Amino acid sequence: MINNILTFFPSLIAVQDAAPEPTEVEAAVAAINGDMGMLWMLLSAILVFFMQAGFTLVETGMTRSKNAANIAMKNLLDICVGSLTYWFVGYSLMYGTANESGTFFWGGLMQGEGADLLFQTMFAATAATIVSGAIAGRTKYSTYAIFSIVMTALIYPIAGGWQWQGSGWLTNLGFIDFAGSSIVHSVGGWAALVAAFMVGPRIGKYVDGKVMPIPGHNQILATLGVFILWLGWFGFNGGSQLAWGGADAIGASNVVLVTNLAAAAGGLGALITTWIWYGKPNLPQTLNGALAGLVSITAGCGNMSPVGAIFAGLIGGIIVVFSIEFIEKKLKIDDAIGAASVHGVAGAWGTLVIGLWGINGDEGIGLFNGGGFGQLGTQAIGVLAYAVWSVVLSFIILKILKSTMGLRVTKEEETVGLDLSEHGEIAYPGKRARE
Amino acid sequence: MINNILTFFPSLIAVQDAAPEPTEVEAAVAAINGDMGMLWMLLSAILVFFMQAGFTLVETGMTRSKNAANIAMKNLLDICVGSLTYWFVGYSLMYGTANESGTFFWGGLMQGEGADLLFQTMFAATAATIVSGAIAGRTKYSTYAIFSIVMTALIYPIAGGWQWQGSGWLTNLGFIDFAGSSIVHSVGGWAALVAAFMVGPRIGKYVDGKVMPIPGHNQILATLGVFILWLGWFGFNGGSQLAWGGADAIGASNVVLVTNLAAAAGGLGALITTWIWYGKPNLPQTLNGALAGLVSITAGCGNMSPVGAIFAGLIGGIIVVFSIEFIEKKLKIDDAIGAASVHGVAGAWGTLVIGLWGINGDEGIGLFNGGGFGQLGTQAIGVLAYAVWSVVLSFIILKILKSTMGLRVTKEEETVGLDLSEHGEIAYPGKRARE
Amino acid sequence: MINNILTFFPSLIAVQDAAPEPTEVEAAVAAINGDMGMLWMLLSAILVFFMQAGFTLVETGMTRSKNAANIAMKNLLDICVGSLTYWFVGYSLMYGTANESGTFFWGGLMQGEGADLLFQTMFAATAATIVSGAIAGRTKYSTYAIFSIVMTALIYPIAGGWQWQGSGWLTNLGFIDFAGSSIVHSVGGWAALVAAFMVGPRIGKYVDGKVMPIPGHNQILATLGVFILWLGWFGFNGGSQLAWGGADAIGASNVVLVTNLAAAAGGLGALITTWIWYGKPNLPQTLNGALAGLVSITAGCGNMSPVGAIFAGLIGGIIVVFSIEFIEKKLKIDDAIGAASVHGVAGAWGTLVIGLWGINGDEGIGLFNGGGFGQLGTQAIGVLAYAVWSVVLSFIILKILKSTMGLRVTKEEETVGLDLSEHGEIAYPGKRARE
Repeated sequence: MINNILTFFPSLIAVQDAAPEPTEVEAAVAAINGDMGMLWMLLSAILVFFMQAGFTLVETGMTRSKNAANIAMKNLLDICVGSLTYWFVGYSLMYGTANESGTFFWGGLMQGEGADLLFQTMFAATAATIVSGAIAGRTKYSTYAIFSIVMTALIYPIAGGWQWQGSGWLTNLGFIDFAGSSIVHSVGGWAALVAAFMVGPRIGKYVDGKVMPIPGHNQILATLGVFILWLGWFGFNGGSQLAWGGADAIGASNVVLVTNLAAAAGGLGALITTWIWYGKPNLPQTLNGALAGLVSITAGCGNMSPVGAIFAGLIGGIIVVFSIEFIEKKLKIDDAIGAASVHGVAGAWGTLVIGLWGINGDEGIGLFNGGGFGQLGTQAIGVLAYAVWSVVLSFIILKILKSTMGLRVTKEEETVGLDLSEHGEIAYPGKRARE
Repeated sequence: MINNILTFFPSLIAVQDAAPEPTEVEAAVAAINGDMGMLWMLLSAILVFFMQAGFTLVETGMTRSKNAANIAMKNLLDICVGSLTYWFVGYSLMYGTANESGTFFWGGLMQGEGADLLFQTMFAATAATIVSGAIAGRTKYSTYAIFSIVMTALIYPIAGGWQWQGSGWLTNLGFIDFAGSSIVHSVGGWAALVAAFMVGPRIGKYVDGKVMPIPGHNQILATLGVFILWLGWFGFNGGSQLAWGGADAIGASNVVLVTNLAAAAGGLGALITTWIWYGKPNLPQTLNGALAGLVSITAGCGNMSPVGAIFAGLIGGIIVVFSIEFIEKKLKIDDAIGAASVHGVAGAWGTLVIGLWGINGDEGIGLFNGGGFGQLGTQAIGVLAYAVWSVVLSFIILKILKSTMGLRVTKEEETVGLDLSEHGEIAYPGKRARE
Repeated sequence: MINNILTFFPSLIAVQDAAPEPTEVEAAVAAINGDMGMLWMLLSAILVFFMQAGFTLVETGMTRSKNAANIAMKNLLDICVGSLTYWFVGYSLMYGTANESGTFFWGGLMQGEGADLLFQTMFAATAATIVSGAIAGRTKYSTYAIFSIVMTALIYPIAGGWQWQGSGWLTNLGFIDFAGSSIVHSVGGWAALVAAFMVGPRIGKYVDGKVMPIPGHNQILATLGVFILWLGWFGFNGGSQLAWGGADAIGASNVVLVTNLAAAAGGLGALITTWIWYGKPNLPQTLNGALAGLVSITAGCGNMSPVGAIFAGLIGGIIVVFSIEFIEKKLKIDDAIGAASVHGVAGAWGTLVIGLWGINGDEGIGLFNGGGFGQLGTQAIGVLAYAVWSVVLSFIILKILKSTMGLRVTKEEETVGLDLSEHGEIAYPGKRARE
């Protein structure tokens, strides 16, 4: 997803090339392609927006009812704050040079940037919202609000610019991350891991060294959430083509196709893994598997055959089951919904897999299809760079927040539930909030 | 959203102009622009359709579980009845002259009107469904059915024609309401206020002069509903461009962008207002704030800079909190979900704000950006006209219904819940209906 | 929905015709129309994907909470398995000849097939998922998994090829089924009926010869599900135009318009029928009526005037109420959500109605508009062929499964609920699973 203003004004490219003047027909086709591209990007932005509803449902359904309204409020905050901060500062921080505009937009939006800005905004909000679920049930709302602002205004845009600005250092290195396995999901996922570690586990999660399950309260809401995320992901990945018409139409369609195949394989991978390992096919893990499949194809959806996509997703769906258990039971970090595994670990995997069996058109660029170690190394550098950036920045910000505002509510507030203590209400009035 | 059949056949415009014959390329481009416009309108209609699901969830979630099935049945009725009546009579009543067709369509739909008719149908259903939530929990289903028919067949289409028919009296006055802050939302909102007043408060709402809270039963459903409405609103406002291609593509994209900014600002406005006023950030009010932000930008989304949109939404989100309290506590009208505030009050605000800081391309047309009082006055006339029309018509219809069929169920029926008394069933079998 | 690779490369058609070389403008227009068609099909595929969420909610909401997670797992399986099997073998089995490709794709996807393959995949998953709800609450998960694979890999693709391959025997006969009333819905519906019969009724459904109601646990989820299905159906029917641009843009728009009218009429038909028959308008039946209206217009949405569509949907919505009662009370087959009536019976009706008042452009092809018995007879042959195919194949497969793996869980497992017995968890932890 290398973003360039020229994408939207293809006719300018011809002019720029100084090459032969385009014919009237060529100019008309270029303009129409630009318009079709804008339509596809706007629709993709709308689909990605809807992912916020999906995140809300997954996070709410997979945690307890006494914190449901708090999670809804965090997700609403992400999209409200993210829409404003990313417009105000994030977008220009990320694409500034390419746009040749100043740092702040201040309402001085360039003509024709609406669809693109909206699309990019939704990515920023996604990166922020990944953190929300991991630290559910014990984090102060005010602290989360500050962290969400910093995420959408600084942490994500700077990291995004390394690759998607068009001439960032990772782009120049040859790094590939088509729609953001690393740039969006890993950045969010590693921040979630750091946050879950620093906030500490929920009361009752680790008792006398034993790990206690804290099941979510509504698996049907979580299932609906995953379907909505899967839906929105078609825009997330497909829209990252940034254009429509000719090869771009075929390209974007294939992106959406392999995205679906990877999601299906990821869900199936987790379903079968739990069937073998737990003895019964497990719903929450299957949901996580489908999401992991989606994350696993996000970087490579423009560089993967259908078969390659299926294996990327399948392995992602298997990895996520073990990763969730590992983080919960070995690292003893209480990531309430497995966000670090779904977005961080699967995001890293999805970025690396391009170096294993990625393609570039008809040419293999991965280790196993004749591409050697070159691309794999570059991918590893990118994975590492985003991990370090996200971990270090999150740690610093959260350290500052901890020593000023505090990260965590009191024991009493946590026990009664954040709905009541942070918002003075409950999600399901008419019945007492249940565990 | 001035609707004109020529929008869909731009090539006809060229012919009409008698001006130089279009070249083969110009004619082809015009035809393709028409096709892209039709695609955008059809997709927008589909998005606006989905708003019916959003309204159902918001209204259901914000009221008690014993009336949930009744609300679902009212919303289903709105879309079923609205789709038929608006096709049968509403559309021709609203756009008759422009279409040069007779009063009734009777299956004699003109070629190429499918996307436009569907888009307009969803607006009519929206105007009707706004009333549903306000009078939840005590209104007779049969009476509501008649009111819904009158709303989609008469009240809304006639009011809509004043502006969107293309040469109505408000259009000629210079009134601006791009996507219907007044035409759809205020008309629905004021009707909701009149209906809530005439039906009277729910049992237990006002006890010994004290106002009692009657919390909704599922804030997560309400949250999902708001996300769906926000999503659908991108089609509601963006589709009102009625075209795609060239300036229209850029225009529609900007419409969607500012729509998102206003929604975000509205949600944030209410969130912060309740944080300051109630001491804690409140979920139901934040949801209403986001909706109010959307309503506040609906009239001006084609005439507002990003900064202007943010302030329109922000103020809309703040106003709605106070308006809900005012109607509930001072006017003592029991609007069960705050529909009159969200749609009526914010709709009026959104219409007026164009006269304050609206723009027309690069030119300021509002009071505060050099446009003088002219536009503001025109906007005020429109706001007033729609308010008077909606209040008077609703009052007359409801008065007739009251003295014939009756508006309200019996005390016993209300106490047991409308699900059981009006539909012989409950929304959540397997547990007793609570509250 | 006759599928032809040339649809996507309209320029090839001109070449093929050997007729006059297309001008530069004609070639450009053809290419752009192809691109717009691909955009419409991709978006339609995305909408149809979302129907999986709708099915999940309808089936979950209309059955008991103790089986909710199991239903979610079945629907997830359908989309995961269906996406892989249909890509791997189903698509080439269905369209093999037309594509002039081998039997298996094995990642060797032809350029430009992404959008079409995804669209067709979602149809296969739909056919499979229809069965899921009918046999809810007592069927073994492992057995269902095998049946789902056979459905998407064999039963549906072979049946689909008879008509949609382009030169199948039903196509050559003049059979019309634009978007699959018979091909998708009846095939799924009759399989559901056979499966419900062979699995046997749920414990407690028929006690001492008396029919006991087993109400679903959440009518609001079911309502949301119907709204999502209605939304997705716009893509299901509209996308079956397989193209956009010129007459196709107008055609697809009209398809979506009549789809909405039929759904509205179907919902209203059931609402009024239950109001008269039961004394009160009934929510679950109104939901089924809207779905039946959608199924009833699916075959004829390209061959029906608005008035014709309304009557097709209205009658479909009325039929479904009686059909559900008939299957439940006379045939004593326990179809847990009425799938056989909604998809099988209404699917047959929707196929036949083309022979009653269908049109082809301006020409009447139905019995009642001057077309004679010819089309009606052809439609009846198609209805019969799909019914026999689905019933026989389902019966054989299920017979084999019964005598090998077994179809049904034990009494104890059924009583405790499939969530716990098949998946070791419950959908709503924190409260005991009820009923």
